[in-house]
Amino acid sequence: MRRDVFTDDHEAFRRLARDFIAKEVVPHYSEWEETGRLPRTLFEQLGSLGLLGTAVPEEYGGAGLDDYRFNVVLQEEAARALVTLGTVRTQLDVVLPYFLTYADRDQRERWFPGLASGKLLTAIAMTEPGTGSDLAGIRTTAVRDGDSYILNGAKTFITGGLLADLVIVVARTSTDPDNRRAGLTLLVVEDGMPGFTRGRVLHKLGIKVQDTVELAFDDVRVPVANRLGEEGAAFGYLGHNLPQERMTVAVGSVAQARAALDTTIDYVKERKAFGKPVASFQNTKFELAAVAAEIEAAQAMLDRAVLELVGGELGGPDAAKVKLFCTEMQARAVDRCLQLFGGYGYMLEYPIARLYADARITRIYAGTSEVMKVIIAKSLGL
Amino acid sequence: MRRDVFTDDHEAFRRLARDFIAKEVVPHYSEWEETGRLPRTLFEQLGSLGLLGTAVPEEYGGAGLDDYRFNVVLQEEAARALVTLGTVRTQLDVVLPYFLTYADRDQRERWFPGLASGKLLTAIAMTEPGTGSDLAGIRTTAVRDGDSYILNGAKTFITGGLLADLVIVVARTSTDPDNRRAGLTLLVVEDGMPGFTRGRVLHKLGIKVQDTVELAFDDVRVPVANRLGEEGAAFGYLGHNLPQERMTVAVGSVAQARAALDTTIDYVKERKAFGKPVASFQNTKFELAAVAAEIEAAQAMLDRAVLELVGGELGGPDAAKVKLFCTEMQARAVDRCLQLFGGYGYMLEYPIARLYADARITRIYAGTSEVMKVIIAKSLGL
Amino acid sequence: MRRDVFTDDHEAFRRLARDFIAKEVVPHYSEWEETGRLPRTLFEQLGSLGLLGTAVPEEYGGAGLDDYRFNVVLQEEAARALVTLGTVRTQLDVVLPYFLTYADRDQRERWFPGLASGKLLTAIAMTEPGTGSDLAGIRTTAVRDGDSYILNGAKTFITGGLLADLVIVVARTSTDPDNRRAGLTLLVVEDGMPGFTRGRVLHKLGIKVQDTVELAFDDVRVPVANRLGEEGAAFGYLGHNLPQERMTVAVGSVAQARAALDTTIDYVKERKAFGKPVASFQNTKFELAAVAAEIEAAQAMLDRAVLELVGGELGGPDAAKVKLFCTEMQARAVDRCLQLFGGYGYMLEYPIARLYADARITRIYAGTSEVMKVIIAKSLGL
Amino acid sequence: MRRDVFTDDHEAFRRLARDFIAKEVVPHYSEWEETGRLPRTLFEQLGSLGLLGTAVPEEYGGAGLDDYRFNVVLQEEAARALVTLGTVRTQLDVVLPYFLTYADRDQRERWFPGLASGKLLTAIAMTEPGTGSDLAGIRTTAVRDGDSYILNGAKTFITGGLLADLVIVVARTSTDPDNRRAGLTLLVVEDGMPGFTRGRVLHKLGIKVQDTVELAFDDVRVPVANRLGEEGAAFGYLGHNLPQERMTVAVGSVAQARAALDTTIDYVKERKAFGKPVASFQNTKFELAAVAAEIEAAQAMLDRAVLELVGGELGGPDAAKVKLFCTEMQARAVDRCLQLFGGYGYMLEYPIARLYADARITRIYAGTSEVMKVIIAKSLGL
Repeated sequence: MRRDVFTDDHEAFRRLARDFIAKEVVPHYSEWEETGRLPRTLFEQLGSLGLLGTAVPEEYGGAGLDDYRFNVVLQEEAARALVTLGTVRTQLDVVLPYFLTYADRDQRERWFPGLASGKLLTAIAMTEPGTGSDLAGIRTTAVRDGDSYILNGAKTFITGGLLADLVIVVARTSTDPDNRRAGLTLLVVEDGMPGFTRGRVLHKLGIKVQDTVELAFDDVRVPVANRLGEEGAAFGYLGHNLPQERMTVAVGSVAQARAALDTTIDYVKERKAFGKPVASFQNTKFELAAVAAEIEAAQAMLDRAVLELVGGELGGPDAAKVKLFCTEMQARAVDRCLQLFGGYGYMLEYPIARLYADARITRIYAGTSEVMKVIIAKSLGL
Repeated sequence: MRRDVFTDDHEAFRRLARDFIAKEVVPHYSEWEETGRLPRTLFEQLGSLGLLGTAVPEEYGGAGLDDYRFNVVLQEEAARALVTLGTVRTQLDVVLPYFLTYADRDQRERWFPGLASGKLLTAIAMTEPGTGSDLAGIRTTAVRDGDSYILNGAKTFITGGLLADLVIVVARTSTDPDNRRAGLTLLVVEDGMPGFTRGRVLHKLGIKVQDTVELAFDDVRVPVANRLGEEGAAFGYLGHNLPQERMTVAVGSVAQARAALDTTIDYVKERKAFGKPVASFQNTKFELAAVAAEIEAAQAMLDRAVLELVGGELGGPDAAKVKLFCTEMQARAVDRCLQLFGGYGYMLEYPIARLYADARITRIYAGTSEVMKVIIAKSLGL
Repeated sequence: MRRDVFTDDHEAFRRLARDFIAKEVVPHYSEWEETGRLPRTLFEQLGSLGLLGTAVPEEYGGAGLDDYRFNVVLQEEAARALVTLGTVRTQLDVVLPYFLTYADRDQRERWFPGLASGKLLTAIAMTEPGTGSDLAGIRTTAVRDGDSYILNGAKTFITGGLLADLVIVVARTSTDPDNRRAGLTLLVVEDGMPGFTRGRVLHKLGIKVQDTVELAFDDVRVPVANRLGEEGAAFGYLGHNLPQERMTVAVGSVAQARAALDTTIDYVKERKAFGKPVASFQNTKFELAAVAAEIEAAQAMLDRAVLELVGGELGGPDAAKVKLFCTEMQARAVDRCLQLFGGYGYMLEYPIARLYADARITRIYAGTSEVMKVIIAKSLGL
Repeated sequence: MRRDVFTDDHEAFRRLARDFIAKEVVPHYSEWEETGRLPRTLFEQLGSLGLLGTAVPEEYGGAGLDDYRFNVVLQEEAARALVTLGTVRTQLDVVLPYFLTYADRDQRERWFPGLASGKLLTAIAMTEPGTGSDLAGIRTTAVRDGDSYILNGAKTFITGGLLADLVIVVARTSTDPDNRRAGLTLLVVEDGMPGFTRGRVLHKLGIKVQDTVELAFDDVRVPVANRLGEEGAAFGYLGHNLPQERMTVAVGSVAQARAALDTTIDYVKERKAFGKPVASFQNTKFELAAVAAEIEAAQAMLDRAVLELVGGELGGPDAAKVKLFCTEMQARAVDRCLQLFGGYGYMLEYPIARLYADARITRIYAGTSEVMKVIIAKSLGL
């Protein structure tokens, strides 16, 4: 069905993104997967084309267009080319909103130009070993000492942490045992600050193009001027950005399910089995038809949610429904598609194998399917 | 998420429908289920309130509003009240469009007032014993004889056939073996025509409020004036109305899945098991959350399709995707809901049991899930 | 694969059962479904053939063969003929074991001859309105008064309750709030005892051949001589018989799934769609192949469990695994089979429709799938 | 439930295997995964312990016990230790039977000692680029020239091909277009034969410890003395060994599903989320209970099939049912288990991530699920 999400501006941006990805991402993608990270130069190229700074105010080198649909277009075009944009996505969809919303004038001047130009890479550090995504359990502490906070603790599963120039760290600034959500604060740790070290690079099943690391903070002195927003207000900030963070996963899931379908259709048309094109078997047709119907449902749901997100109306439970459905759909879809490749589906030179490995994380990160269900159930009065 | 389908007119119509259903349908529904049909008086009541004739031109007693969304509202309100409107739905969504589109001036005058007032009940007779939904296999014949056709054949699975005053019969008027689709014609058989008899009433697993019968035509003389549209053009006519026919099933599926969810939420909140409300078990919460997410996806997809249908843009493959997904979703949803009722879910006094029995037909009628997949696969180039 | 469960004796019994069912059950089955119960004469016929008393000691007219495999054969042969034996199954598999194990000499003399001959019909009354299958919540009381108990309370979902001459009632004889499991006792209420009345016959989605009723006990004076086993020991007795009760559901599930497969294979071979046998479509082949594989797995699991049950070794968690898997498998299998019938699958004249309706209860009664999971999880140390 | 497959001899062998795996496999496994192959020394160690030669006749250094259950034990013990034996499994379960059954006296003397001692590594080369598992499509040719065949062609997806000293190549020795199955012959190509080269090592999603390569044969002169069995008889030979080849995949699937369950149970007991052990959530319990029930069904089915295989009675359709069910079950089980690990499930340092990646091949190799369904459907008369 016809999608009613995008305007001409988005479509112009789409053409730009498509070209860029074809020329600058696709040829290097396997190499980046082996390295386990994106090169800094990619960020700079994206920045110079204006693809990173759409949401950054014009005075700092951006386009001043705070419209999530540009980010949607980027993910869709990457998926279409059978790649992803790895940590670019996290930077734009997950980390940047904190800077845009909570940076004060001074911080804007220090960081926004670099964010728009791709000179500054970022990460956000929430999860800790042993606490998972439960913010109430955060044990990293930041103790005020004059104009600084003294930061101590360890974080894990930090996407993009390897190269990040700026890491937003969620730390506990107050330890009132009666309200463990109240004492959280966002501090921006900069590369090179004494006591800030990067730990192991974690080896993952998929999404190999994005690095995931452990970070350690050992008496890191972070100036108060690096605090993002108010002290003790981080719990609310993080909750506020969750719908977009979940949407961004759903956007990727639907785009990649569609890419899986498309590449599979191409494959089954050209490939023969037992003397006939794989496409000619009824099982092939029925499997792909079922996948196509599911993608259509997910897309319709997602598009409605994108418009609500852009309009500032998307609630947490609706975002949870979208993430739950779209990621579960992706899992089913990609698995069915891979099967139709036979042995080739298991070979990494076929993108379907990567799509399969990548897909397994989406039901987990940015809140597991189980957490989504908790949120939805609560909204049903259960 | 917010739905963007209805206008104030639809909402006014919705209030009217809701009241009517509460007062005139709900109290009698069990009785009708036992009788196995709706009473004629229900059609007359609906007609006098204007609920049947919205799409009929004003000059014939209708409202002249050919807007499928009124039909959507009717189904949604029935489901909300945990009932259905049985053959009213078939009359409005499936049969009426043929009259509205293909009736000539004379036929309009003869039949439209009765269609709007609920005095004339209708059915459409396509399926034959042994051919299923394969139009090319139709063997009922209509041979021209002066100003009449002589009709011979047998039909089965005719919804509403028991009480129908007018039955649109799909008959073969030419038997060119090279083009079995070309020779089909629509003839309106009237109650009382010699040679027209109703056969067995079929006993079904569910949808008990709508009668399903066999019809037989033995040298029935049907005046040419009762032919709907052109001779030999029925294949095209039937194909043209298929998207709406499939949408109407999907609309019911989503509305009834939602009704199942709502009645289950009510039940699990009040009912206890092992000393605790059923709603308090995590399994209950997770099951219903998953159902809610699926319904949301189906609703988003459906609403977009409704708007395309109203705008005259809904294609066959998209209608097929919608029917496939929504009916398969309904099956999963209702099954999961019923399970949470325990033994009560199997008792017909609980509407969930009826919702379950009713749900099993939606993956079958108006084109099985398998037929939907054939259509979708073709549109994918497979 | 070859089954290794039965001996020549069982196979001889199977031939007897098969003949009987073909002659005495199949021709009347639809009629019994409409009546909503089995006739007493069926029990008497089965009794006179020795099919009811295999497990009853010879001195009381039985065969003295306490071997559950005879019961398995009965269910398998009924399913094979596309019928069930309704309350015969409950009597043999669920109720009889209590009599066989706990009846004293006097009770044996009073009741065993009638149980073997089919003159005495039975039921067991556990569930109460509002408590479900939670024994700890039972509120029916039996207060000792001289040589009798005065029984008060209400029971529901009582299979076979309509015609039962003897009803084993689970009642509370002590109300120690600290140990709600301790005070339960089995009392045999006889038809005609003052104060014992049968309430509503419940209308169910399926299993229509077995009656399910409410029972009420209003100051029923039950002689102590009608107590089965020790006072206060019922909780243990009930738990002890649970594995067999669950196995009997699993046996039926597998047998009926197999019957569904067989009748579907017959149907798709003879039926045409779009000019070709339904059997010739790859989708048909793949669906039925998948069903066949699942049935084979269930059968292998079930057969092993039957042998363990016969050997007195089957544990509760293993019985729970078997019931969970076999009933969930049945649901999937029957649903897939029905779909291949198209519209005919929804017509009650096709046994597949009844198999579908009947199947929905097996995931619920004798402990829901959820209760099975609780039991299994506990055995996993969770 | 109790398994009835193994004797004391198998259990003694199990202890030996368990020790060996703990000491010689587990500590090196990650390293082998990175290298992408097993070291030759592993084969030699296994050989010197007698673990490779159980089926080889005693006169050649084996134990003369041609009993597939020893192979089952090896796979089970590897899975239990959260590793696999990679190409050892292929050598023992897939390749060795051809040598044992078809080698003539001379060949036995040349090769059996090395097969038993682990000095000779093997592979079998069937699949070709573009033909998949369709033997009728094989295009590699062997043309008789005096005492040799001249072999030309290319093979792909060759497990163990990188190190193999002996490769059994399926080649076409006759090209009767009317019977493409008739002209296939097995030739043993030896490492170092001129014209025999190994091509690319294929990068796979999982099973990283076993190498998979392309092989090329360019005018390789293979002595007739290296022909295994009769000329033109390979089609029958290959078909004969298929049940065991499929069983070996099923054995691995069940063993690894069980390993996944066990490691997940350990994990959820120790790991906390939102302040409570993950094991304490009802969702966790229910997911693992469902997995446990499925594994039990698969194990029962598999054990029965193992006994039939050992007894020489296992038919092709039954082997197909077992492979289909066990591998599909594995996929569901491992996916559900991984989910309970949250983010850790995606990290390769947790074996569950490897179990997930490894699992995706089992529905594909040794005949896809689709091929299994074709075989089963045929046996149902469809």
